[in-house]
Formats: sequence, C-alpha cells, structure tokens
Amino acid sequence: MEARPTTADGPIPAPTTPPAPTASEPRPRRSGYRRLPVQQRREQLIAVALELFASRAPEEVSLDDVAEAAGASRPLVYRYFAGGKQQLYEAALRSAADELTSRFAVPVAGTPSQQLAAVLDGYFAFVAEHDAGYSALLRGGSVVETARTTAIVDDVRRAALRRTLRHLGVREAGPRLTLLVRSWIAVVEGASLTWLDEGRALPVAELRDWLVDQFTAMAAATALHDPQTADVLTLLLTLEGPDAPRAARLREVLSVR
Amino acid sequence: MEARPTTADGPIPAPTTPPAPTASEPRPRRSGYRRLPVQQRREQLIAVALELFASRAPEEVSLDDVAEAAGASRPLVYRYFAGGKQQLYEAALRSAADELTSRFAVPVAGTPSQQLAAVLDGYFAFVAEHDAGYSALLRGGSVVETARTTAIVDDVRRAALRRTLRHLGVREAGPRLTLLVRSWIAVVEGASLTWLDEGRALPVAELRDWLVDQFTAMAAATALHDPQTADVLTLLLTLEGPDAPRAARLREVLSVR
Repeated sequence: MEARPTTADGPIPAPTTPPAPTASEPRPRRSGYRRLPVQQRREQLIAVALELFASRAPEEVSLDDVAEAAGASRPLVYRYFAGGKQQLYEAALRSAADELTSRFAVPVAGTPSQQLAAVLDGYFAFVAEHDAGYSALLRGGSVVETARTTAIVDDVRRAALRRTLRHLGVREAGPRLTLLVRSWIAVVEGASLTWLDEGRALPVAELRDWLVDQFTAMAAATALHDPQTADVLTLLLTLEGPDAPRAARLREVLSVR
Repeated sequence: MEARPTTADGPIPAPTTPPAPTASEPRPRRSGYRRLPVQQRREQLIAVALELFASRAPEEVSLDDVAEAAGASRPLVYRYFAGGKQQLYEAALRSAADELTSRFAVPVAGTPSQQLAAVLDGYFAFVAEHDAGYSALLRGGSVVETARTTAIVDDVRRAALRRTLRHLGVREAGPRLTLLVRSWIAVVEGASLTWLDEGRALPVAELRDWLVDQFTAMAAATALHDPQTADVLTLLLTLEGPDAPRAARLREVLSVR
C-alpha cells in the first residue's frame, strides 16, 4: 500500500493556471492534467484504472500508475480515492459489475438459443475487454479481494440468475431449477477463464455455441429430477421451433454409436 | 492478527511436572495440555483448527481458540505456527487438500456412473465435515485467502482433472475435453456450496445422481463439438451396459413432450 500524501484540499484541485478561455476543452495545465467536472474526473480515473487492471494484476497497479496514465497528479487521485488503491479497486469493480449486468439484457427477437447466444457474445466481449482484471477477480487470492469485492461479484451472479429465470418465464424457481441455472453460470465463468488462460485459442463463436448446448444438456439432465425444469425445457424446445436441431443432435450423440 | 508472544523455547515445552509413570498416556499438566511428540502435536493442532474452521469463518478463529480447544498453551501453539494464524490456516488447508485428493481414488468395481457416484459420495462427506471452512475457502474474500491458498485449491482442482481424465482412459486431453471436465468440476463445487447454503436440504443421494447425469449430459453436448469427447462418451455408454438407463432417460427428456 502506498503512503498517502496528506492534503486537506477539496475534491477538485485549484488550477495553478486559469483554463484557456477560447478552448472548448480547458488546455493542459503545467503538471499535465486537465480540469474536469467532479463526476467526469472520477469516471475518467475509474476508466483508466480498469484499463490498467485489464493487463496487470490488481496488486501491480499503484495509484501513481493511475495518476500517470490519467495525466493527473498523485494528490488529485488520492483526493478522489482517499481510501487508497483498495477504494479505487472497489469503485472500478463496481463500475465493471454495473456494465456487465447491463449486458444481461436479452434481445427480443430470435429463438431461445439465439437469444442466449447473443447474451453470451456480450459476456465474452466484456471478458475480452477486462481480461486480467476479470481473471484476477474470479480466481481469488488477490490482496485487493475482500468480503466487499466478493459481495459485488455475488451481486452480478444473482443478477444473472434472476435475469435468466425471468427470461425462462419462471416466477418462483424451485431448488433444482435454481441449482441448474447457477451451475450453468459457473460453467460460463469457468469457460471464460479457460479461454483467457489459453490465449483465446478457442474461437469465441464455438465456445458460445458450446455453452448454449451445455444449457440444453444440463436442463435435460435436471429435468430427469425435477418437473419444473422439465416444463421449462419443454417450453424452450417448443419455442426453438419444430426442428430444434440442437436437441436432435444431442439425442443422436446419446445413442451409442 | 494476534500479537505473537516472544519465546525462544524449542518446539516441545519442558513439562513442569513429570508424566505419571504408570499411565499409558501422560497425565494432564497443570496448564491442561499433554506432552505429545512433535509431529503428533502438530497434527493435533491442525485437526483442532480444522474442526474450528468447520463451524466458523477463518477470521473468527484465533490461535488462542485453537490453544484452548487443543488443551494446549498459547506459546506452544505459537511455537508450532510461528507465522501466526495465517501459517496455521495454510497448514490446515494443505492437510484438508491432501485428504480430499486422496478421496478421488476411483473404486475398481461398478459401471462408470456407479464409480463416479462413489467418488462424489466421498466428496460430499468431505464437504459435510468441513462445512464453513470449505465454503469460506471457495467463496473467496476471506482475509486469510492469499495467492498461496488459491494455489492449494488449484492443485486440488488439477488433481481432480488428472484423476478424471485418467479414469476416462485419456492420455492427452484436447482443449474441449479438458474444458468439459473442468466445467463439470466447477458444477460439483457450485452444487456443494449451494447444498451447504440451503442447510443440506437436498438429499445428498439425489444431488450425487444429478451430478452423474450432468456429466453424461455435458459430455453429450461437448461431443457435438469434439470427436475426442464423442469417443470417450461412446466408451462410457458401452461400459455402462446395454441398457444405459441414464442416457435413455436423457434422450426421452430431449424429445419434446
């Protein structure tokens, strides 16, 4: 943890030179950073931090690095994140979590498997963008990981669960259907970590189709144990259309060849 | 983190009273703890710690608690674990990890799904025994979680992966088969956490059968994408016997009813 400079200034540093009156953007100050409104500056610092976390482990990113990459002074960064790197990390994580949750929106058009594929494409785009940060967070063991960061991740998982169940038309999910959806979400997370580990060697489209097929397969196995899941699966396969090629292929595979 | 008493004594405290010569076990000392050989004492302290971790979060267990539960003095516990609670936690985790890995041994008799069920029974017995400790570890966000504890957990996962692939008769697993087995292991972990969360409401036998069916289903979905997995699945279904009731039931479920 870096030493925190003691400063009693307000959240916006007083500029040492006035902004250029004619420029639509204030011209750079001597120290190299620009005047920005509070909220905009905060978002900028978080965005810069997320970029750094994407390629480095959280413990390898200092507030100084963020200041430098943002073209801001160290005291300014500390004024926004008085709690130090931990506070910045949590703010960045919260921002990323909100962004990820917003990607869970299911497109209106398409069959269930096309809709699921579209959501997965959004998920993998997020994973690709955040890379190391996503990986460090889900793997655990990072010094910046706390009960609070774990809670943020759990919130995202719960949002994914709620969104999936709503999309399946389920109001109250029993324990087996909940277990199925949670398990599938765990498979998605694991698959995306493996994908990053292996330098993105597997094509995303293939991984996405694999995950869609996993959902069908896992639902089929759960339906053996649970009438609610059986009803959901029946509906899904009906919506999928008369051919439901995926289910037909699964049946084919399950026949001993 | 507790303050560590400064003591330069050796690992075994000098008894203040001699052991009773007639007892097969030395009689308790005034301070309430018994003389034990070094390795035995160490194992006892780890076993006591594991018991405490089973019902409390790691951050709620102090070395004093371990000393008290073990009937040992505080200085003695500190002598064995000079690195404090963190060292004790890691030693306990390593011990639990070794025990869990030893349970991955597959019984010789039975069909593949019977063998898998037997290994899962061992796994759930472990989960039931370690309860809170298992949960805290896999959920992350604990103060005692470090890159080292994460590495120990990853070792267990790798052992599970190796053991499963060996049992499937696979020498070199391609990326899709590896992804399948890893994903299924993630499902097992997630299911056991859910089981604990819900106060063990789902019967273990049902959860175990669900996980066996998940393996078949996930393998079937992977076989659509990967010839190696298709070969493994064909072999498994053949070994399962001519009826292979689980696969037949999956096929039935996948037909729109």
